[in-house]
Amino acid sequence: MSNETITGPMGFRTAAVAAGIKASGKLDLGLIVADAPCVAAGVFTRNKVVGPSVVIDRERLRGGRAQAVFVNAGNANTCTGERGVKDIETISQLLGRQVGIAPEKVLVCSTGIIGHYLPMPKVKAGVKAAAGALSGSAKAAGQFARAILTTDTRTKTAWRVLRLDGREVRLAGVCKGSGMIAPNMATMLAFITTDAAISPAMLRKALREAADRTFNKVSVDNHTSTSDSVLVLASGRAGNGCIRRQDGSYERFVEALWGLCDDLARQIAADGEGATRMVTICVTGAATARDARAAVRAITDSPLVRCAFNGADPNWGRIISAVGYCGAHFEPDALQCRIAGHCVYRDGRPRPFKAAAVSKKMQQDDWAIEVDLGAGSCHDFCYTCDLSGQYVHINADYHT
Amino acid sequence: MSNETITGPMGFRTAAVAAGIKASGKLDLGLIVADAPCVAAGVFTRNKVVGPSVVIDRERLRGGRAQAVFVNAGNANTCTGERGVKDIETISQLLGRQVGIAPEKVLVCSTGIIGHYLPMPKVKAGVKAAAGALSGSAKAAGQFARAILTTDTRTKTAWRVLRLDGREVRLAGVCKGSGMIAPNMATMLAFITTDAAISPAMLRKALREAADRTFNKVSVDNHTSTSDSVLVLASGRAGNGCIRRQDGSYERFVEALWGLCDDLARQIAADGEGATRMVTICVTGAATARDARAAVRAITDSPLVRCAFNGADPNWGRIISAVGYCGAHFEPDALQCRIAGHCVYRDGRPRPFKAAAVSKKMQQDDWAIEVDLGAGSCHDFCYTCDLSGQYVHINADYHT
Repeated sequence: MSNETITGPMGFRTAAVAAGIKASGKLDLGLIVADAPCVAAGVFTRNKVVGPSVVIDRERLRGGRAQAVFVNAGNANTCTGERGVKDIETISQLLGRQVGIAPEKVLVCSTGIIGHYLPMPKVKAGVKAAAGALSGSAKAAGQFARAILTTDTRTKTAWRVLRLDGREVRLAGVCKGSGMIAPNMATMLAFITTDAAISPAMLRKALREAADRTFNKVSVDNHTSTSDSVLVLASGRAGNGCIRRQDGSYERFVEALWGLCDDLARQIAADGEGATRMVTICVTGAATARDARAAVRAITDSPLVRCAFNGADPNWGRIISAVGYCGAHFEPDALQCRIAGHCVYRDGRPRPFKAAAVSKKMQQDDWAIEVDLGAGSCHDFCYTCDLSGQYVHINADYHT
Repeated sequence: MSNETITGPMGFRTAAVAAGIKASGKLDLGLIVADAPCVAAGVFTRNKVVGPSVVIDRERLRGGRAQAVFVNAGNANTCTGERGVKDIETISQLLGRQVGIAPEKVLVCSTGIIGHYLPMPKVKAGVKAAAGALSGSAKAAGQFARAILTTDTRTKTAWRVLRLDGREVRLAGVCKGSGMIAPNMATMLAFITTDAAISPAMLRKALREAADRTFNKVSVDNHTSTSDSVLVLASGRAGNGCIRRQDGSYERFVEALWGLCDDLARQIAADGEGATRMVTICVTGAATARDARAAVRAITDSPLVRCAFNGADPNWGRIISAVGYCGAHFEPDALQCRIAGHCVYRDGRPRPFKAAAVSKKMQQDDWAIEVDLGAGSCHDFCYTCDLSGQYVHINADYHT
């Protein structure tokens, strides 16, 4: 067992198998099972076209309790009509029988291609095999992290430890997400376990707060998926006094949860399809929060800007012109722009800068575009990545 | 002289020279000069950050008259402050002197890189050389069409002839546009000449109507440029009764102007940076015009969707999921989608279709994605193109 995995927090076991859903034969089915019913919460895609798992998970989370998570990659079970719903019921009942819990305590997530039925004989065999292999080991958790991937090039995990009421409280998370990523919660799959004792209402609130500042701030291609979800299960085994209101313990729990989600969100941006570097887009000085968001989105969503990131080109013209059409209020003469720490534009005019030096910094991972609209005190940000030829290659050649 | 060029309508001469603004040494400076003051109108970018030429042209077009157009490629003269304004005044005065007209009757357009001052000694020599070479020949018009290009791979021209009051009325247009193209007028440069007799108010109205249904419906990369413009000059030489109200002659003139602009707009989409094929996105059955537009934009702006066009992949899942997050009102069970004439999705479910046959059609130029929201009677459309590795190559390697 390792503190740093989803079986680090007390009370959880996991397993993953290659059920044959992915044509590659790689791990594609994972389970997280808690020893006892957990307090649970979720945030889900805002897409109007959603997979049945999103509908069912939302319904099951109304009571704020869950005990197990089923996830498969390779098939999103979306646009699959009544049969898609029935397949989830079948999975829930089978998993419930295998591990001795009520089917309504099972949460189900599927990611992958849209519009194909789940290959149920393979899925059922996979559920049985995985249920028989549940373990608290770091190895099992590592396999789970691999099983949920699609076009991701690497696993994504994060963890936090804090002390509440003299007890050590652990949080651990694992996620997937690479393409079809836009800042409109939740555009990927993430699973978070914690042994904190917390009420359903406060856990829901904490997850919403953390997700809004992290997963909702990632954009790879401005395309919100139909079936993605963030789920958190809290076993309560740490023994802290149960968090029931917005007190100091709650604040510290949210801070830890936010930090963990931020770690995961950055990993998603950095592993954007075809990405060679992660970039943070920061807008300050906006008159309204809406303006700040509009400016961030215009910069982030411009393929011209993101191609310039790929070429490590300090092309402030594309950034400034994107801000120009975003609809935000500002005086052109008040605009400022910094690229990777260098001021390139000020008072509505380009500033002399050493292009080669800035370009060199832009070739590295994890730098920022900072735009100040000079019109107020609102701000916003987004994690994104460069747009590469590899992105096109991946998405032009991935056939349905 | 040829009917099919901007010197086809009576009363116009043109010229183009290689002034040395483009590093390549290609043609980069063009003039259109009318024999007498024309009725004139323009539509311009809605970007808040605009080049001084847009500000000056708007001002000069208030009176509805102009006699000459100066255009250069290779340098957008944007974000160039007071010196950018002064350079335009200098160009206007010089050209005015050379051809014997008032500087206020000169319209100025610049396209190319942002944030660099115009190389005025080269520009001034170019204006003099071009003014001395003005001609009504098809060759001169062809050179003008080449001189305004930037990353375009080909010239773009269109023409129309109609009869009004027993007189032959000609319209001809030339445009450039390949990258930084979004549906937010005007995202390219276009110059239209006509010998129609028409009042300034009706010409302005006609151009607005035509542009809204054509140039405002093109998206290559959802990035609205800072300096682009559509200008029309009407010499009145055709001798038709001057169009002064919304009568039958006006309707027929608008129809011809719309057809001409539609031709040009489609050519821009087809020559989108790196494009291998042009695609029309059509949304019908929307509850509101705003919903129709949102759905069109979500599909058009998704790099995932446009990569699928590049791969000729009938990936309806990406299209349906884009519609799902666009914010439009619809019932998922009422959605329909056709790709290149084939129904692939109906009543909220995928339909069986021959993927190879649809893919083969998608490899051709000029087909459509048709989405019916089943929620009303509003509709909208957009001309776009595929997103290719070549687009990234062009825009990652184009250095400032």
